[in-house]
Amino acid sequence: MARPVPTLADSVRLTEDAVLILDRRHFPFRREWVRCADVDAVARAISDMVTQSSGPYFAALYGMVLAARAAAGLAPELARAELDRAGAVLVASRSTNNHLGKAVRAVLGAVDAAPGTDLVTAATAGAEAGAAVYHARSRSLGEHTAKLLPPGARVLTHCWADSYLIETVNAVRALGNEISFYCTETRPYLQGARLTAETLAEMGVDTTLITDGMGAAVLSAGDVDALVTAADRVTMDGHVVNKVGTLGLAVAAHAFGVPFLAQVQAPDPAAPTAADVPIEHRPGAEVLHTLGVRTASDRVRGHYPAFDVTPPRFVGTVVTDRGPFAPGSLADYHREGSS
Amino acid sequence: MARPVPTLADSVRLTEDAVLILDRRHFPFRREWVRCADVDAVARAISDMVTQSSGPYFAALYGMVLAARAAAGLAPELARAELDRAGAVLVASRSTNNHLGKAVRAVLGAVDAAPGTDLVTAATAGAEAGAAVYHARSRSLGEHTAKLLPPGARVLTHCWADSYLIETVNAVRALGNEISFYCTETRPYLQGARLTAETLAEMGVDTTLITDGMGAAVLSAGDVDALVTAADRVTMDGHVVNKVGTLGLAVAAHAFGVPFLAQVQAPDPAAPTAADVPIEHRPGAEVLHTLGVRTASDRVRGHYPAFDVTPPRFVGTVVTDRGPFAPGSLADYHREGSS
Repeated sequence: MARPVPTLADSVRLTEDAVLILDRRHFPFRREWVRCADVDAVARAISDMVTQSSGPYFAALYGMVLAARAAAGLAPELARAELDRAGAVLVASRSTNNHLGKAVRAVLGAVDAAPGTDLVTAATAGAEAGAAVYHARSRSLGEHTAKLLPPGARVLTHCWADSYLIETVNAVRALGNEISFYCTETRPYLQGARLTAETLAEMGVDTTLITDGMGAAVLSAGDVDALVTAADRVTMDGHVVNKVGTLGLAVAAHAFGVPFLAQVQAPDPAAPTAADVPIEHRPGAEVLHTLGVRTASDRVRGHYPAFDVTPPRFVGTVVTDRGPFAPGSLADYHREGSS
Repeated sequence: MARPVPTLADSVRLTEDAVLILDRRHFPFRREWVRCADVDAVARAISDMVTQSSGPYFAALYGMVLAARAAAGLAPELARAELDRAGAVLVASRSTNNHLGKAVRAVLGAVDAAPGTDLVTAATAGAEAGAAVYHARSRSLGEHTAKLLPPGARVLTHCWADSYLIETVNAVRALGNEISFYCTETRPYLQGARLTAETLAEMGVDTTLITDGMGAAVLSAGDVDALVTAADRVTMDGHVVNKVGTLGLAVAAHAFGVPFLAQVQAPDPAAPTAADVPIEHRPGAEVLHTLGVRTASDRVRGHYPAFDVTPPRFVGTVVTDRGPFAPGSLADYHREGSS
């Protein structure tokens, strides 16, 4: 029986004349789409964090198509220069997001590879191929994850693993198994309470929300079979960089004998060690508020390291689109071919 | 130079005709006092969580004085029966709070020990003695804690350690040292963001707020010299029962070599092991809200174990009013005399 696609799995859309982006800042309390009529509007939406996680990747792919449409009447060199400018604007919209450059290169590469082809046709094909590859790699990653989970697995997750989460659930079901989740609320932006919880509920998955301080309690109580999170980055020496809070859960999982599976399409060859990954610190004031309302004393400052780094000794398995790897064997990923 | 007493250190007061209780549910955003004209109103305020931590202890002491005043015109046996009834009402107001019975016994004991004395005089003396003993023990505990901290200590704390926190800061300063804090916001009720942060700010202590998921990040970054929390209960075999979230911080502190000091006036001889301490589970819906506003998907349930249990292997030192003890040596506390 086909189940409905969860809202966030289809929340960046290319239309005839715009890119539509579901506003994740208010989801699921309000379901509002931001309409971006040109690439600058797409960049602004990314910069304003209308979407996040994989959202900026798709927004950038489709933003490049808008740029190609706008440049369609220009001379070829001028049109190509416009695409370069569009790509630079998109890449600059969020400095720490690796996905943006990848999306821009996917479209520019398709355009450059077909010099005779109509600009819009080539750009659209590049964007569609970029989207298809991303989906296929996430699906593969989900299938590899599902094989590592016992039937009826009770999984603790943190923040919002986006398509990795969705594809993991799909793959578990394809194996004929059930899965249930504990998810952390993930302060300060509550991605767990809003995006993860709502998406799992949409998929009909049994889901329980806990606060960010309760992970060790459920792990020590034997309520959890595996800790599964996405990783923003995995270094070649096995450090997992992910939303702050992952480290504490990984250490507790290790202490109480629960395996930790970190999901990433591929380890990052540009980051041999953890020292190669700068950690973004966001404004401390974000910690002092919840959904825009002040929730802390007016007399203190906040501290917001957006990511933390889990050393390999606390990482059980890194699950990639090519299968699972021990954190000490990630070089094997790239030895097996390039993606 | 005398510093001002923080608001919460004097937030349950006995007046000529009532007990005044500062409403901690809204502090520091609103500073409202609940006026309780009789013991039943005091019990209701405790039951409604107007005050918490050490607050119910003081409220019960002074509630017994209100009961003595109301019974002052009665025949001695009738008056004594009224005091018993008042004590039973207070003890029933919060089933998991050990302090309430202790407060009631302090006043009843003073009344029974001085049969010739005026009832109100005896009850008031009993309440004042009960308050004085609590303050003295907290002060002693704070002094022992201060001696274990390096000068300029950067301390991570969780939830709200109440008078233990205040007396620790006082004692550190009496030694001529400085101290600074990271405090967790402590969802769902934000005691850290509201009570701890505001109190430390009132005391002029350098304070930084983090979310409940950031403790491991600051511990692993070397930003913290000690983890210091209160304990609701410490079992004789060294398990620390405290606000959920303590366990995760303790495990992370252990992993990154940061000492964990758990503060309690005395280990509990009625709890030989962790199995002797039932863990209160509060309504899961509390996890789904923040200060009364829904902050999670409408389609999931919450899970709220109010406390967690930190095994002795993750506890560095239990600091009591009689000094520090290793978690494996708590029997020595009671061998040294009774309190």
